[in-house]
Amino acid sequence: MQHTDISLIGEFGLIDRIRKIVDVRVDDFALHDNLMMGIADDAAVFRPTPGKVQLFTTDAFVEGIHFDLTFTSFKHLGWKIIAANISDIAAMGGIPRYAAITLSLPKKISVEMVEELYRGAIFVCKKYSCLIVGGDTTSSMASMVISVALTGEADERFVRYRKDAKPGEYICVTGHLGASLAGLKVLKREKERFVKSNDSPAFKPNLEPYALAIEKHLMPKPRLDISKILKEHVQIGAMIDISDGLASEIHHICNNNEVGAMIHEQNIPIEAVTQKIAGEFTESPFDYSLYGGEEYELLFTISEEEYSKLEKLTTDITIIGRVTEKEKGIILVREQGEEEPLRFVGWDHFRY
Amino acid sequence: MQHTDISLIGEFGLIDRIRKIVDVRVDDFALHDNLMMGIADDAAVFRPTPGKVQLFTTDAFVEGIHFDLTFTSFKHLGWKIIAANISDIAAMGGIPRYAAITLSLPKKISVEMVEELYRGAIFVCKKYSCLIVGGDTTSSMASMVISVALTGEADERFVRYRKDAKPGEYICVTGHLGASLAGLKVLKREKERFVKSNDSPAFKPNLEPYALAIEKHLMPKPRLDISKILKEHVQIGAMIDISDGLASEIHHICNNNEVGAMIHEQNIPIEAVTQKIAGEFTESPFDYSLYGGEEYELLFTISEEEYSKLEKLTTDITIIGRVTEKEKGIILVREQGEEEPLRFVGWDHFRY
Repeated sequence: MQHTDISLIGEFGLIDRIRKIVDVRVDDFALHDNLMMGIADDAAVFRPTPGKVQLFTTDAFVEGIHFDLTFTSFKHLGWKIIAANISDIAAMGGIPRYAAITLSLPKKISVEMVEELYRGAIFVCKKYSCLIVGGDTTSSMASMVISVALTGEADERFVRYRKDAKPGEYICVTGHLGASLAGLKVLKREKERFVKSNDSPAFKPNLEPYALAIEKHLMPKPRLDISKILKEHVQIGAMIDISDGLASEIHHICNNNEVGAMIHEQNIPIEAVTQKIAGEFTESPFDYSLYGGEEYELLFTISEEEYSKLEKLTTDITIIGRVTEKEKGIILVREQGEEEPLRFVGWDHFRY
Repeated sequence: MQHTDISLIGEFGLIDRIRKIVDVRVDDFALHDNLMMGIADDAAVFRPTPGKVQLFTTDAFVEGIHFDLTFTSFKHLGWKIIAANISDIAAMGGIPRYAAITLSLPKKISVEMVEELYRGAIFVCKKYSCLIVGGDTTSSMASMVISVALTGEADERFVRYRKDAKPGEYICVTGHLGASLAGLKVLKREKERFVKSNDSPAFKPNLEPYALAIEKHLMPKPRLDISKILKEHVQIGAMIDISDGLASEIHHICNNNEVGAMIHEQNIPIEAVTQKIAGEFTESPFDYSLYGGEEYELLFTISEEEYSKLEKLTTDITIIGRVTEKEKGIILVREQGEEEPLRFVGWDHFRY
């Protein structure tokens, strides 16, 4: 890869290069038909779909906090920051539409690195049908900061909130949990091994057996697939995406609804690779899944009756507990049956 | 002011404190009626006004590049970052609606500082009728980064673009130019004097005579007032807001329209205070106005006929030149009558 200093082409030169990458066709033609102006003006302009409500979310990633450029490619970074925002739209029962990317770039970042990041962003945009229509690029004193704002649309009656959970409902999650943190642990371990190898040409990273966990960490897939099933076929209660960790999201749901919860640890879906990695670190895979974060799976509540319809439509959903009365508290039932309060701990950048 | 470490209350504690500040009433009741969910969920949800197009813009400010916390209060910072985004909406012929603020905060930033920033942001939101409905807060390794995404609305037929300038049209600007950079120069000079004073209690900053320029730098007013007149009463050509500097914006307009321009330096509106400050620095006030940036005034093109209607409606607009054929180039006519190419130089963070 060539490395062109951004100062050689300036901000406007960089924007021209970005514009060439983001100008792609996706299959949802309404997106293009309704976009009247993209990144070539003071603001993007689009016609909202009549009768739909607009969704609006934003998520920022900071180098050294959310990502480490020694083991995160720019393409993966572009994917992940857009995917994280799409996940928020999925958690509301909507579909993504238009994105704006803001980059604060330290001197070490070249034009080609920015292009790679946009290629990753475009890759996920094509997959989930949204368009990049704006943004801002600035320099940065030290670390790189990426912030994405994303709009989405939904039928008003299909919008799902964090509120609306009722005692007695099941608490369900999509996919499996804990793999994202497990993947990160492996990436960090291999980085350490590489540093210790003193840049030896004989060094080979050992990633292959952990591919599924690493992919989950670097290229998470927002669950628009399940979100679509949930809104079209069943009536659910509350919904939230798991970005800060399962334990933290359960607390959010309980606090928003003045309810309690009982979570059964052994019901939490955990992949074999996550168990393997946790074993290698002599840590608990349950801890990974409860406090790990960056999963981008969905957590929702649903009545028994509605669940019986849902289980015929997908196998990618697991019941991990039940909503209870507030007085019961937020309880974790451990593998051996002991009950304890579920700690309100997650991926909180200000504490770690 | 108390200084509470953010790590003491964590990200969710901080969001709770922010929520208390942003939950205000503005006079535009439609904003509240149509907002179905603000900052308490994965995404904000709002009903767009039927028949209107949506505008979507984003702008980021980086500590050390865009602002210096030694002479910028957090309240001013909150004002300015929202105002800068509103200016983009004004330049499209729209009105602002819903904002999301993303903060990346280094350890030195306290809870109370963040609250002050939000108070400044709310102040400008109330003045121009928009609501803060979302955002993200993360920690940062070194400097503070603020990114705002803002939606707006407009009648489709009133949206104004950078395109649509035609040879023969006047080139006009609102307000006066150069004061923002002039104000910044004074602030930097007083900071230097303060540093040299060795923290002496006898030190008094000399700001009073420069108040108008300093206010222009710290609390710019987006020109929604003129934008409203332009869209409701006359037909204009192209429009852009002056954020990177007059010279740079004229190049954008010319490049977008394949036209040239002739700008008469002596017609550029410059306040007495800007002339005074430029004199003190033995610099040219014209250079401040051409290459300064962060003005948040509007630049637009308009036919002679439409201009004759416009001049009856406001005195806050100045003709600074004319759109010409592309072959004529982009020309600056200096005070003494010499013609020279207008340099494509502005406030480009990657070059300075």
